[in-house]
Order: sequence, then C-alpha cells, then structure tokens
Amino acid sequence: MRKTQSGDFAMLISDDRKPFFLHLETDGVLQTHQGILQHNDLIGVPWGSVIKSHLGASFYILEPALRDLLLYIKRRSQIVFPKDIGYIILRLSVGPGQKVIEAGTGSGALTTALAWMVGAQGKVFSYDRREDMQALALRNLQRVGLENRVEFRVGDIAKGFDEKEIDSIFLDLPNPQIYLPHVRAALSNGGTFGSILPTTNQVTDLLQALQNQDFTLIDVCEIYLRFYKPVPERLRPTDRMVAHTGYLIFARHIIPEPTPEARLVTES
Amino acid sequence: MRKTQSGDFAMLISDDRKPFFLHLETDGVLQTHQGILQHNDLIGVPWGSVIKSHLGASFYILEPALRDLLLYIKRRSQIVFPKDIGYIILRLSVGPGQKVIEAGTGSGALTTALAWMVGAQGKVFSYDRREDMQALALRNLQRVGLENRVEFRVGDIAKGFDEKEIDSIFLDLPNPQIYLPHVRAALSNGGTFGSILPTTNQVTDLLQALQNQDFTLIDVCEIYLRFYKPVPERLRPTDRMVAHTGYLIFARHIIPEPTPEARLVTES
Amino acid sequence: MRKTQSGDFAMLISDDRKPFFLHLETDGVLQTHQGILQHNDLIGVPWGSVIKSHLGASFYILEPALRDLLLYIKRRSQIVFPKDIGYIILRLSVGPGQKVIEAGTGSGALTTALAWMVGAQGKVFSYDRREDMQALALRNLQRVGLENRVEFRVGDIAKGFDEKEIDSIFLDLPNPQIYLPHVRAALSNGGTFGSILPTTNQVTDLLQALQNQDFTLIDVCEIYLRFYKPVPERLRPTDRMVAHTGYLIFARHIIPEPTPEARLVTES
Amino acid sequence: MRKTQSGDFAMLISDDRKPFFLHLETDGVLQTHQGILQHNDLIGVPWGSVIKSHLGASFYILEPALRDLLLYIKRRSQIVFPKDIGYIILRLSVGPGQKVIEAGTGSGALTTALAWMVGAQGKVFSYDRREDMQALALRNLQRVGLENRVEFRVGDIAKGFDEKEIDSIFLDLPNPQIYLPHVRAALSNGGTFGSILPTTNQVTDLLQALQNQDFTLIDVCEIYLRFYKPVPERLRPTDRMVAHTGYLIFARHIIPEPTPEARLVTES
Repeated sequence: MRKTQSGDFAMLISDDRKPFFLHLETDGVLQTHQGILQHNDLIGVPWGSVIKSHLGASFYILEPALRDLLLYIKRRSQIVFPKDIGYIILRLSVGPGQKVIEAGTGSGALTTALAWMVGAQGKVFSYDRREDMQALALRNLQRVGLENRVEFRVGDIAKGFDEKEIDSIFLDLPNPQIYLPHVRAALSNGGTFGSILPTTNQVTDLLQALQNQDFTLIDVCEIYLRFYKPVPERLRPTDRMVAHTGYLIFARHIIPEPTPEARLVTES
Repeated sequence: MRKTQSGDFAMLISDDRKPFFLHLETDGVLQTHQGILQHNDLIGVPWGSVIKSHLGASFYILEPALRDLLLYIKRRSQIVFPKDIGYIILRLSVGPGQKVIEAGTGSGALTTALAWMVGAQGKVFSYDRREDMQALALRNLQRVGLENRVEFRVGDIAKGFDEKEIDSIFLDLPNPQIYLPHVRAALSNGGTFGSILPTTNQVTDLLQALQNQDFTLIDVCEIYLRFYKPVPERLRPTDRMVAHTGYLIFARHIIPEPTPEARLVTES
Repeated sequence: MRKTQSGDFAMLISDDRKPFFLHLETDGVLQTHQGILQHNDLIGVPWGSVIKSHLGASFYILEPALRDLLLYIKRRSQIVFPKDIGYIILRLSVGPGQKVIEAGTGSGALTTALAWMVGAQGKVFSYDRREDMQALALRNLQRVGLENRVEFRVGDIAKGFDEKEIDSIFLDLPNPQIYLPHVRAALSNGGTFGSILPTTNQVTDLLQALQNQDFTLIDVCEIYLRFYKPVPERLRPTDRMVAHTGYLIFARHIIPEPTPEARLVTES
Repeated sequence: MRKTQSGDFAMLISDDRKPFFLHLETDGVLQTHQGILQHNDLIGVPWGSVIKSHLGASFYILEPALRDLLLYIKRRSQIVFPKDIGYIILRLSVGPGQKVIEAGTGSGALTTALAWMVGAQGKVFSYDRREDMQALALRNLQRVGLENRVEFRVGDIAKGFDEKEIDSIFLDLPNPQIYLPHVRAALSNGGTFGSILPTTNQVTDLLQALQNQDFTLIDVCEIYLRFYKPVPERLRPTDRMVAHTGYLIFARHIIPEPTPEARLVTES
C-alpha cells in the first residue's frame, strides 16, 4: 500500500469537499477552515487515509488527479477548462513521446495537461509574449514535477516558431489566423492544428483563413459539461453550469496541390 | 518531410470527406466511390499529399488521428464516443507508464485510447466475458500497432481482477456496483474509478453502492458535443447531434476510517 | 401613440438593465440606485419614452411584458421558469376561453401565464394546500389585473378536484402520480396532463403510474435556454446558464379499452 | 363526455405512435399501415376512445393538440419548431385580443400558433412575397378552423406594413435588419420585436441594426429540447436530438431621446 512521503505533493479534501494542496514537509503546518493539521501526521500514511484536524474534522489525503491540478492551478488568466482539455488532447492525438507547440502559455493549465501526456520522452514548446505569465506557468509545473517536459519561449510568435516537424500545434490567442503560415512551417506535414476562441466572429475569421491556406478536415465544435448532484434517491443536474468557454476548431494541415504553372517549374 | 512507406496504416479522405483506412502494400488497389487508387501511387509520397483516383477525384493521404481510429474502429457493439473518451482519460489521470484496467473490452475503442496514452511503458488490462469481442478488439489494436500495450483477460470479473496497485479502473458494463469490492481490491489506494451508464436508474444504483463502499469525490456528469458547419460566412450548428451516450461517474477510492472497535483490535 | 396613465402598472429599465415595477400614482416617488424619479414625470408620457432621474440617469418606461411579470414576480418559492412555461402552454394547448387546472399554486408564476392565455372568457382553477401561498399569488395577479381569471382552491387535492371537463391539468408538486385518478376524473376525455419534476427518480415514479393508468403519447423532456451576449462584433454565449429547472412530462388521457368482462356487462 | 361528430378534425394514433389526421365524414375511409378504419366507426364515439382497424390494430382518437397541428402541418418550407414557438409566444406576450404581425408566412406553423393564442377577438397579419406559400398556409389554417383570425398580405415588406399600433412583430426571413424602420412604424410604442435566424453572421447583422435603431432590452438566445425515452425502469435521453433550429432575437422598441437640436425645434 503506497504511503505518503516527505516532499510529496498532496491534496487534502475536507468533508465539505474543499481541496487543499501542499507539499509535505517535516514539521509543516496546514491551516484550514476546519482546524489545523500537522504535516507530520500526514507523512508516512497510506494515500487515501482519513486524517483528523485538531478540531476533529476529517480530511482525506489524496494524490491530486490531473483534473485537480488543472482546476486548482494558480492563475492570473482564464484557463482552458478540463472539459475542453480532454477533447483537445484526443483531437490533437497527443501521446507519449510527442512534440507539441502551444501558444499562449497563459497560466499553464493546458501546458500541464500536455506535459502530462507527452511523458518524459516528449516535449511541449510553450510560447507567450508575457514573461510573467511564463514564470507563473513554470511555478505551476514545478509544483507537480513536470517542468522538464516543457520548453518556454518568451516572444511574439509573429516571428514564427523555432521548431520543425511538430506533431500538433494549439493556439489559444485572439487572432490565430494571422499565424497560420508559421503553423504550417512548424507542423509536421499532415499534422493537426487546434485553437479555442470565445466569439463566433473570431471563428468566422479563422475558418476563412483555414480554407484559404491548405487545411482540410476542418471542424468547429463546442463541449458542454453538465454535472449531477450525486444523490442516488434524488438524482438531478446541478442548478447552474458553465454555458460557454470557447469554440474549438481543429484542422489537418495538407500539402497544396501544385498549380499547373508550379508543376511546370518543378518539372523543368 | 515525412513520407508514406509500405506497411504504413493510412487514411485517405475524399473531397466529400469520406475516410478510407488501409495498410499500404506494394501493388495493392483501393476501390472507392470516386474511382480506383493504386497503392503504389500512395507509397513514398509526403503525408498530407493529394492523390488522384483513376477518375481524377482528389484524395488526401493522412495518418489517422487518434479520433479517426476511435470513430472508425471495426465494431460489433456500441463504442465509447471520443467526446467521452477525452474526458475519461483526463478524469482517470491516464498518462505514460500507467497501469489501467477496463471492463468490458467491447470493440476496443476505449482500449485503443488507453493504450495510446499509457505508452510503451504502460499497460492496459482489458477484461471481457466474450472471447469474440476480445478477438475483434485485438485486431483493431493490431491494425494500429498498439496490441503490445494491452493484456486481454477473458472471463467474468465477478471473480475479481488479477492485478493489484492499478492506477485507475473503468467499468463499461451494466451493473458496475456489484464489482466495487473487486475494484477496491485492485485499485491503488486513492486511485480513480470511473464508469459509463446509459440510464438514470443505473446511475442511482451505482451511487448508492459508491456511498456505502469507501469512495469519495463522487461525480456524475454528461458531455455534450455540438458541431458547427465550418462555413465562415454562414456559421451555424449542424442540424442534429448526439443527445446521449451515457452518464459518466467518477470517484476516488479511500481507505475506510476504522470503526472504534476495529481501532481497538489494531491497537492491541 | 399610447401614453401612460395614472394607475398603470409600469416597468422602468435603467441603463444597466435593472428593472423597477410600479403602479403610477399622482405625486408618487420612485427611489432607484441611479436617483429619484417623480411619478408625475412618468404619467402622460408615451410608453417607450426616456425619463431622467434627478441625477440625470436615463430610464425607459415600458409596459411589463409577460416574461417580465413572470421573472420578477414576488416569490416565496421556486417558480416555473419562462423557458418551461412557454413550452408548457404550447403542449397543454392553452388558449382563449379554456378551463385549466394547476396545482400547486406556489407564488403564481405559471398561474399568471395561464390566466394571460385563457383570456377573459377562460378560467384557471389553482389549488394549493397553503393559504399563505395563494394569498401571495393573488396579490401577484391583482398587480397585473388578471385575478378575475383565476379561482383559488385552498386544500389538499388528495380529495380530488371540484371541476369536470377541464381542458388541461398541470401538476407542480412532489408526487403527482398519486393524484392521477383525480386528474382523470377532472380532465376532459382526451385532454392533456402535464407535470414538472426536479429528479429522475420522480420521473420514473410518474412514468410507471402513467403507463398503468390510461394515458398515451407520454413524453418526457428538458428545455435548455442559453443566452448570448448581444454584442454584434463579439457574439458569444454568456458564461453561465441555468443547467436544470425540471423534467417536463406530458400525456394524453384516454378512455380505457373495456376488458372482455366489462364488455359483457355493458352489452347485456 | 364529449364525443366526436361528423366534420370534426381528428387525430388517430396507432400503437407505434404514428399519427393520422382527418376530417370525419360519414362513409369516409382511412387507410393506414395497420389496416383500414371506417369513419362511421369514428363518429359519435368519446374522444380518447380506442378504435380497431379491420386488422384488429388499436388506434386512439384524439383532438389534435396545438403541438400536433404545428408538427404535422403540410409544409413546403422549414417551419418554426414548437420548442421555439412556445418561447416566442411568451416573449412576444401574445394573448387573447392582440394584433400581431409576422413575416414571412411560410407554411404557416407560427401563423397557426399565433392565431390560436390571439383568439377570436385578435388578429394576425401575415406577410409573404410568395402567393403559393400563403395559399398553403391558408389551407393549413382552414383545416383547423383558424383562418378567420389571419389576414394574409402578399407582397414585399420592403414597402412597409399596412398596420399601425401592432402589439408585437416577428420576422422569420433572411435579412430582418433592413426592415427595422418598417417594424418601428407598425409597432406600438414600447412593443416587442422578435426574429429567428439560422447563422451567427445574421445575428451579428441584426444586432448592429437594433443597437443603432432605438431598441432596448435586446436578447439573443437558443432553445434546446431534449427528449427522454419514457421507460420508467430505463430512463434515459433519446440517442439523437435537434442541435439547431435558429437563434432567437428579441427587443423592445423605444422612443428615441430627442437630440438637443430636435428638442429646440419641437419647443419652438
């Protein structure tokens, strides 16, 4: 039975389902709304155990699941939501050993999920113009030990990406269409491009550019996630839900068919 | 620029977006509704190229994305849909190197996605009572070269799972609640359990069992996916959509707090 | 051009879209978060005019639309939402001159809409066990001048309804299935029954009873309403929405086919 | 107990829930997929009765509900769906005795619902450029006896509406924004305007015009309707649903605040 160790990153869940995140440190102390917990009582116990605060309140100690890491990331910007991240990863075919570009980094939620999925052999190249955001994202990744899988690039992607033969590229920024030439240059031929955009007007702009610039299998979609109150004898959805995070757009990059003139030149 | 090779598993997309899946073989022939293609014309070309059929129709040659593999799997049962698989993977925190159990195997769509995500160092243990379904799933995995990441177990999980210390377990079968003791025995302490169920009555039954059997952070939710017609100047959702695939249930396994009596025994 | 008169029930809308409801009275005064308005300035002006508060803030004076009346009803209970009321009225075929039963009255939102639709020639019979709720609903109806279209019945419908040959009946209470015999007795043969229920377990219970008690064309459905931010150049859904109000159930009452024994009796 | 009479418009429902609409005529005959029914057997029976075909199949005889009339209207164009009609009627505050304009008429589904709701004292003015569509809509209204409540106007509304002081106006046509000046001229001051549009681009165009042309309380929304399979012990949504019919837009017409110059003129 796996046990907690000093240095582990842990999540404590109170009876009212409030999460607390902490690195376990000898002699450390955690203050909560339901009393104080001594780190020493949290170290060396089986994951999943019940721990009592000095007020007698019960807490479960758990390894943060990937979704916990994403939802409770320290943030200074709107993050990509887990409901969208799951589908993005699937649509980008992200997996162990892959190389992925994202821009912008933001607070690093999608960065974290991508780093999780590419594994130690993969690499995420994360671009953002704002150095402070990347510093925040780096701290978020360090907190969960994934920082070695990410290379941060500070700067404007209007100058292009440094990488070539990238498996997939995701743009979470206002005008993705103006960067499509750089996407094509960095993306492996046939690779998948994705983006998230909040407004229909932006989707229209991106679609126009995608159709004109050698992309196929263009998809636009939305993901809705509706939770239920988990009460067996009174099963019903929650009263309110997130109505909108963003439209997701995906497309495959293809190699343009040479025009008759171009064919003549290459044949000569 | 990466090029196709004999033996590659490829997807051809017609102008009207119909996909064809094939292993490229020297002298092979592909019949389509828009004419015949010679495999020899498909081998040694850059991925993403346009290929013409004998009728002059255009096809793009692409590596199947993970979603393509899932949607167009050979099936003899309802598959778990990509919209749900993306979220399941995220909620189960599936990633490189992990060990995951699923039951039942079915046609192998979720199996394929899990195998994709755990990588060469991970392992998926897939249970099903029906040998014929597992044979089908095996062929689906072989088609995409992921079969070494999966161990199939034919048999009734009412006898329990063979594995211990599994990172996460997903049950896609009618009465998951009756297998929860086996889930607890096989799941790493603190690990994540998930299930998909089509009816509200089944969700009620599972919730009752989860509450009585040492699980916490119980979530019930639904994922909706709505596609848009990707026409920039007439952007609008498609006319129809999938209204329901299943309710998703997730929970973390915890270690029961010893009752006062139990505590006495362990302390003695 | 129609103008406001003393005694009219009016709605004032501030620039930030906050509504105020009032009966216009000579020398009356309205206090708002954006200054004071004199009723005398609101009387004798065209509906739709702009009126200034003493602080110079602009207000539009409008007749409350039906939806305004429903949303901003004085309430001491959960009301049926306009999104559901619109569909309920359509499914119950409510129209001028009809007789409709509802139970319970609650704060009177659905009562108001039904009274609006049946007109001066129709009648709504509204049952509730709680006299205080009916007093509140009566005040809400008086406020908009619809009270003559409603007959309130205080009491438990377990004793049955006083009316016969009713066009449609709607039950908004926890266990509608136990009142179905009374529904059948009061409903015109072939008439429409409807109900709203928050949980799936309740829907299951009602469905079982409907199937056993001479109803056909049974429908269960949910209505979702998603608003958009009405900004033309940044069109997008609002961030959050109502995820659930209730499941709507509709059925037509039919006359049971006589059993062979019953047929013998009637034929003799 | 109300009984069917010769001349009544009736709906027969087969066991597999297929509806048949007919006017009962002495000696008439109805052919169905489950056998033949003689009208004489359908006349003089209580509404809601079971009638047998010559093959012994059971049919219920019911008065068509309003929704039945809308769904099964004879159509040569996309109709406004009942889910949207219910909400439109509520948002337009349609009720007994009102005067309402709609354009275009189309097959007359919304026309039918409006005529139903305004009653014998109200009036619907329905505009369409196509005389053939209005002829179809007229036949649909005659079928259900509502034709006296509708005045059809053949012609282009670019020339304006013939009416003044209309309670509400609904436009179901491609470019509603170009007719807004005519809407303002015909609509009672403070009245409600509504429209339905399939694409986001059209919504953007309409919103721009509404903001520039003296409208307030502008709302954009979508209605989703999800049905459940009404099986009590296996309660679950249907597999597929309508994903999109149109965006609904509503606004209240207001009287523009006079500019300082205009004020000088009126004061002189």
